[in-house]
Amino acid sequence: MNAMTQDLLDQATIDERRARIVPRLQLILTPSQLKHKDEDLRPFETDGLAPYRRLPMVVALPATKAEVIAVLKACYAEDIPVVTRGAGTGLSGGAMPHEGGVLLSLTKMSAIKALDPVARVITVEPGIRNAAVTQAAAPYGLYYAPDPSSQIACSIGGNIAENSGGVHCLKYGLTVHNVMQATVITIEGEELSFGSQALDTEGFDLMAGLVGSEGMLAVVVEAKLKLLPTPTVTKVAMAAFDDLATAGRAVGEIVAAGIIPAGLEMMDKFSLQAAENFLNAGYPTWAEALLLCEVDGNEAEVAEHIADVSAVLTKAGAVEVKVARDDAERELFWKGRKNAFPAVGQMSPDYYCMDGTIPRGELPAVLKKIEDMQQKYGLRCANVFHAGDGNLHPLIMFDGNDAGEAERAAQYGSEILTTCVEHGGTITGEHGVGVEKIHEMCVQFPGAELQQFHDFKAAFDDKGLMNPGKAIPTLNRCAEFGHMHVHNGELPHPELERF
Amino acid sequence: MNAMTQDLLDQATIDERRARIVPRLQLILTPSQLKHKDEDLRPFETDGLAPYRRLPMVVALPATKAEVIAVLKACYAEDIPVVTRGAGTGLSGGAMPHEGGVLLSLTKMSAIKALDPVARVITVEPGIRNAAVTQAAAPYGLYYAPDPSSQIACSIGGNIAENSGGVHCLKYGLTVHNVMQATVITIEGEELSFGSQALDTEGFDLMAGLVGSEGMLAVVVEAKLKLLPTPTVTKVAMAAFDDLATAGRAVGEIVAAGIIPAGLEMMDKFSLQAAENFLNAGYPTWAEALLLCEVDGNEAEVAEHIADVSAVLTKAGAVEVKVARDDAERELFWKGRKNAFPAVGQMSPDYYCMDGTIPRGELPAVLKKIEDMQQKYGLRCANVFHAGDGNLHPLIMFDGNDAGEAERAAQYGSEILTTCVEHGGTITGEHGVGVEKIHEMCVQFPGAELQQFHDFKAAFDDKGLMNPGKAIPTLNRCAEFGHMHVHNGELPHPELERF
Repeated sequence: MNAMTQDLLDQATIDERRARIVPRLQLILTPSQLKHKDEDLRPFETDGLAPYRRLPMVVALPATKAEVIAVLKACYAEDIPVVTRGAGTGLSGGAMPHEGGVLLSLTKMSAIKALDPVARVITVEPGIRNAAVTQAAAPYGLYYAPDPSSQIACSIGGNIAENSGGVHCLKYGLTVHNVMQATVITIEGEELSFGSQALDTEGFDLMAGLVGSEGMLAVVVEAKLKLLPTPTVTKVAMAAFDDLATAGRAVGEIVAAGIIPAGLEMMDKFSLQAAENFLNAGYPTWAEALLLCEVDGNEAEVAEHIADVSAVLTKAGAVEVKVARDDAERELFWKGRKNAFPAVGQMSPDYYCMDGTIPRGELPAVLKKIEDMQQKYGLRCANVFHAGDGNLHPLIMFDGNDAGEAERAAQYGSEILTTCVEHGGTITGEHGVGVEKIHEMCVQFPGAELQQFHDFKAAFDDKGLMNPGKAIPTLNRCAEFGHMHVHNGELPHPELERF
Repeated sequence: MNAMTQDLLDQATIDERRARIVPRLQLILTPSQLKHKDEDLRPFETDGLAPYRRLPMVVALPATKAEVIAVLKACYAEDIPVVTRGAGTGLSGGAMPHEGGVLLSLTKMSAIKALDPVARVITVEPGIRNAAVTQAAAPYGLYYAPDPSSQIACSIGGNIAENSGGVHCLKYGLTVHNVMQATVITIEGEELSFGSQALDTEGFDLMAGLVGSEGMLAVVVEAKLKLLPTPTVTKVAMAAFDDLATAGRAVGEIVAAGIIPAGLEMMDKFSLQAAENFLNAGYPTWAEALLLCEVDGNEAEVAEHIADVSAVLTKAGAVEVKVARDDAERELFWKGRKNAFPAVGQMSPDYYCMDGTIPRGELPAVLKKIEDMQQKYGLRCANVFHAGDGNLHPLIMFDGNDAGEAERAAQYGSEILTTCVEHGGTITGEHGVGVEKIHEMCVQFPGAELQQFHDFKAAFDDKGLMNPGKAIPTLNRCAEFGHMHVHNGELPHPELERF
């Protein structure tokens, strides 16, 4: 059942499965909600991690909870794997289809069911876009805090699957801290509701277990999200450094000063120059590194905090510190940061965005190591990341038409993640494991934890039909990976088509 | 195996089990670490929920992780239930012993293993007292936020088991928000480590599943806790109301104004008078209700917030608003609140402390209902509680020597919890379910969630040996309870000795 550990299913098996499941699904869904011809399936073959792609066997687009239940029951009865998909913006291949499975797309379930501005809770369906939640809350002076950079497109269901973060998660937490309650459907069609509107909920905290479970446990059909009051005042300070390690140390200094910024982002020379060339954000192009530090709150507290931040940054060795003089300049500073990925993308035929975390104190050492690896792999690497929570996003630049470069990019990425683990960090900050980092999970969890994860999954999904082959490697696969890892430099997933 | 659904084991069975397990444990523990004679077992027969008591079969006091592993392996091999116990201050009977089981007391494992003031992480053993963590962190200008009122005595292991809160959890979260990593031992002796020092951790979030699991999954042997910088300035406003419902509405107004107080506590007339008589906190005894609202942060933000809070309270109908003029007066205000339970205790031979939550907006309605129930049950009920997070602590006063009163107190408590659920709340805010509220779990989870909880538990504890009979009722028991509930007014646990 593990898509990573077996060869792809042969066409005859796929055809046989399709012949079994389609008639059952036709009893549940209208023709426009059910796709099973190759040309209709093509748009679904990949999520945001384009190198990993597969044609799904069938795509189902339910519009109601009852339809979700019926589709899942049919798949369970016929032993057909199910991969749930939101907007398909995920960056770790978590929604990569199964060639012999149903891709369950939830884009038709995007309603707002309720908005209680007094309790500050919004009840939504999973397909709603992240930005649409804040849009709906704005008239009440409220907003939804988690803001992944794909927020215009990505869906709340996907955010829950990946436990998405964003620029503001240092202060306001990840998705898990902002979802109060979720109603899910298991592969057997059972409806379960976990969490509550209270701070604590009795029983085991399966709500937290569901958030970040990468579609491997159950399908979210409704969620109650916490809304926060929009801050009265927001200010941002930009600090330019003539040395990367000094900027890394400054991050620790800010947090050590007792300030929790609403956002604390870092760009290295390559990224800030790319961003500046791309859209004139006003960045000093001489700088080796740039920090953007945002504080929010009421008038008095922001005034005091921005003064403190500026003083700490200067003392920590910033050559220039500039507080945006108004909202327009603040937005310009952020525009550069938010478009740094596409800006870097313009400089290279392809780039590979990594996502690992390290304790803040390790920033100077790890940044140096990543920089030094450039020579080893013969590839450039830019760094644009959530410095405040130690969440790195190295962008490895390569040319996908050059097989050697693509392979070296994958190896470079893998070494970055292993380095993160060696420095007490993790192999993903907010993008999830998916198919991309399934091997690195063996590095992250060398002990009995993986078996515990499998047991936990089995408590929801006894047949192993929910998103098989993602996020949690089999123990066999880890043994095999250790072997590969020592003896040669194979691609993580040679069995998958790349580009 | 479920202590709630079966008669107590007979003495012959207990003796036979004890004869099997004691020799095995003698190979692991010194004589002072192993108690199995009735007179030595007596001090362990109850936790903080005194009505529920049982003599454990054996008490084991391991001093190292290796000893914990060996004890659990022995119990697993001999099919002996294990109840883990911290300081025994729990208020829901979660650590009530099993008459045929080993009580695993972790008081000898109370070391601080590491304190990193830069990363703001402290690594501790489970038996350390909550207050000792903050004491150790204080020299670095840091503290541990969760502060249950038992913090002088209660242990971090117990806090993790119960997901403890406290006065400050509205702003700083519960235990689950302040534990970064936990190392646990399963009943099979397997060591597992969940969580990380990063915001997100890959794999399923079993860390959150462990917090609040009431000793039913595994034994915590080490935890990394988040430390916070001690706020520079703290101020408290006291508001007196001539009407309980108005005070309830004022709570909503404060939060609606965008202020997140560090603490927002409420006392009704009975409690504030009791507290005032007990230790002259300076409370206006004419008031029908009192709110204490604390704000913390830097100088400027506290000045602005305390002014805002005072204005909101006045506008919301407070007759008198008084900001403590200095730290001495602030501590006096809090002293009254913190000693309100014993103060109320002085007014009655016995009292029963309830713990339910409701959405803040429901406070006025639910407070009124609880007040009205006094007449129905012929008992007085005082209210002292964490108003900001809607976490009620009604104190039902009764005379334990009068069987009728004790029974009515239990029924009164049960009706309060059912009322909380009806108003969209939960049956516990921070005390846990334990044995006390196991029946109300049937009300809270009428659907398939309970079965999911059992499946989840089985993924850790296939034989069901960890704290059997607590927190998660069997489905049979719920069916039976529904029957009881409809047909008569029996005590929740007639099979248990009371007092």
